[in-house]
Amino acid sequence: MRRALELAHRGPMGPNPRVGCVLLDRDGAVLGEGWHRGAGTPHAEVAALADARERGADVHGATAVVTLEPCDHTGRTGPCSTVLLAAGIARVVVSVEDPNPVAAGGARRLREAGVDVLTGVLADEGLAALGAWLPAVRHGRPFVTLKTATTLDGRIAAVDGTSRWITSDVARRHAHALRADVGAIVVGTGTALTDDPSLTARTEDGSLVEHQPLRVVVGHRDVPAGSRLRGPGGELVTVRTHDPAQVLAVLHEREVRHVLVEGGPTLAAAFLAAGLVDEVHAYVAPVLLGAGPAAVGDLGITTITQALRLEPSTVVPLGPDVLVVATVRNAPADEAPAPAARPSTEEEH
Amino acid sequence: MRRALELAHRGPMGPNPRVGCVLLDRDGAVLGEGWHRGAGTPHAEVAALADARERGADVHGATAVVTLEPCDHTGRTGPCSTVLLAAGIARVVVSVEDPNPVAAGGARRLREAGVDVLTGVLADEGLAALGAWLPAVRHGRPFVTLKTATTLDGRIAAVDGTSRWITSDVARRHAHALRADVGAIVVGTGTALTDDPSLTARTEDGSLVEHQPLRVVVGHRDVPAGSRLRGPGGELVTVRTHDPAQVLAVLHEREVRHVLVEGGPTLAAAFLAAGLVDEVHAYVAPVLLGAGPAAVGDLGITTITQALRLEPSTVVPLGPDVLVVATVRNAPADEAPAPAARPSTEEEH
Repeated sequence: MRRALELAHRGPMGPNPRVGCVLLDRDGAVLGEGWHRGAGTPHAEVAALADARERGADVHGATAVVTLEPCDHTGRTGPCSTVLLAAGIARVVVSVEDPNPVAAGGARRLREAGVDVLTGVLADEGLAALGAWLPAVRHGRPFVTLKTATTLDGRIAAVDGTSRWITSDVARRHAHALRADVGAIVVGTGTALTDDPSLTARTEDGSLVEHQPLRVVVGHRDVPAGSRLRGPGGELVTVRTHDPAQVLAVLHEREVRHVLVEGGPTLAAAFLAAGLVDEVHAYVAPVLLGAGPAAVGDLGITTITQALRLEPSTVVPLGPDVLVVATVRNAPADEAPAPAARPSTEEEH
Repeated sequence: MRRALELAHRGPMGPNPRVGCVLLDRDGAVLGEGWHRGAGTPHAEVAALADARERGADVHGATAVVTLEPCDHTGRTGPCSTVLLAAGIARVVVSVEDPNPVAAGGARRLREAGVDVLTGVLADEGLAALGAWLPAVRHGRPFVTLKTATTLDGRIAAVDGTSRWITSDVARRHAHALRADVGAIVVGTGTALTDDPSLTARTEDGSLVEHQPLRVVVGHRDVPAGSRLRGPGGELVTVRTHDPAQVLAVLHEREVRHVLVEGGPTLAAAFLAAGLVDEVHAYVAPVLLGAGPAAVGDLGITTITQALRLEPSTVVPLGPDVLVVATVRNAPADEAPAPAARPSTEEEH
């Protein structure tokens, strides 16, 4: 299991669980290893079976040691329970039972088919390896990435509100690639009205990519006719609330798994204060402004010991800029209250 | 010369000039190459001669192609003019004449000794290669590094003024290494009174390193008795002015070659607005505060096109933090007025 955990940690942080798998023969010799490399790629079990095949190993009657209970549903990949059964695996050792109600049930399915299943081995470490994916799945809400794009002195715009462009082409292209990967982009009405953003995922030449995320505007003001948000792109959804938990409830119901919060400072602060941000993507440009709005509004923090400390996972130089990707530690989502009343929502096409 | 310029660009950005040198025989074959690697290391000419020696090449009668006029003074290294003469170099091709009155005169010295000296070859490119060192030397002032240490949202402290610690041990140790390398650390009276900093260069175990920079406090208020600034460390110098040019004039007179401006926002903004910052060291920590003072005070910038855009030279991950080193482009120091009246200064021991 320790080896499987090591493998799990090779996976990327982000909206997908980090899972590792080791296949062992009856004598404990390794037949194959695998880990989950992120959205749309094979699960750890499938990767380990492929590795064993490449090594020419016979996995019939083997033991699969896996950090997360094998899934039992068909998402972008098929159910791992079925794959393990088809391969003739005789025994499965699991660290963490799947907290995701949609995907859980793999252990039961395997047991019913006569496989010997042991769960809960090094469960604390298995939970830790899963990463920021866990609280989101556990609480039945999408994974939330907060994106900021600031100057070195933390400004998202000049005093007059202009912000095109603080970051470079390279950084903006990178941000567009993330947009193409999420289910929804969320902004406050302030940003929608001030910046008139299109919130589309575009390629280098400016054309729309095939998958366009939902465009979600949070707040009570209307998005004016003629706004870019009403132009070509993903469906426009207005959520008339100021409660981030309600926004996520609406999006969860629409089966959005990954939400990108793009601003402004008030909305960013509301999500952070509610403990509903899983990771931060901070693009920082080598620019100084000396004045202008900051990326994050008031969090009610008054002294340094209350500071919100993140766990950085990557630093990526992007042209002149730098992207810091950081996970929110001790995800306060664990303590966040469930959303209260359903807000009124409008879906616009 | 193009090759010499390429070599020059291998040198680090910072308070030292970036210079390259190629030694050629009569047929134009390369005998040796060198470049300046920063403070206290051999000049490019000396490095090229050493390279030729290692290659076993005979440099007698050779041509030295060098991007900056060889120096004629003894600093941390001896005069290059003498070294070139001793090696029997017959011809020197120079891109840029030395704008530093202290070190200039190498070309004249070489010509007087019978060496054929040609200057001004690809001079524009030679100037560009020199980097941020140039405006400082040209204007007879120290090289200025502005250091900031902020959260991802650009704060240097929480609302109540507490800031210990935003950045990590690793980043603070790195910052202490820079302190040990500069001639003076400058802060405003606001920072001196609020933070009670010691402004010393310390090793990992907290003991003072041998070289301690001057500790310079800028402003009209007094540094109280009992302040850490009056404790062990470099000499305390109070400069009673708000004009950064006057501060630099005082330090230039004291033969300070490299000044580190450490805060606060008002002083940082004053130096930036006066065009008297050559490079910025921005330590950014994966922390969010949502409120609190920003790193840089008002620069009079109101719209994005006026933003102060820097040229990043390095991005260094330091533990959880990241250091962005960036050069101030088109250094407005070229247009900065000379300091007017001498401010009153006090030197304290």
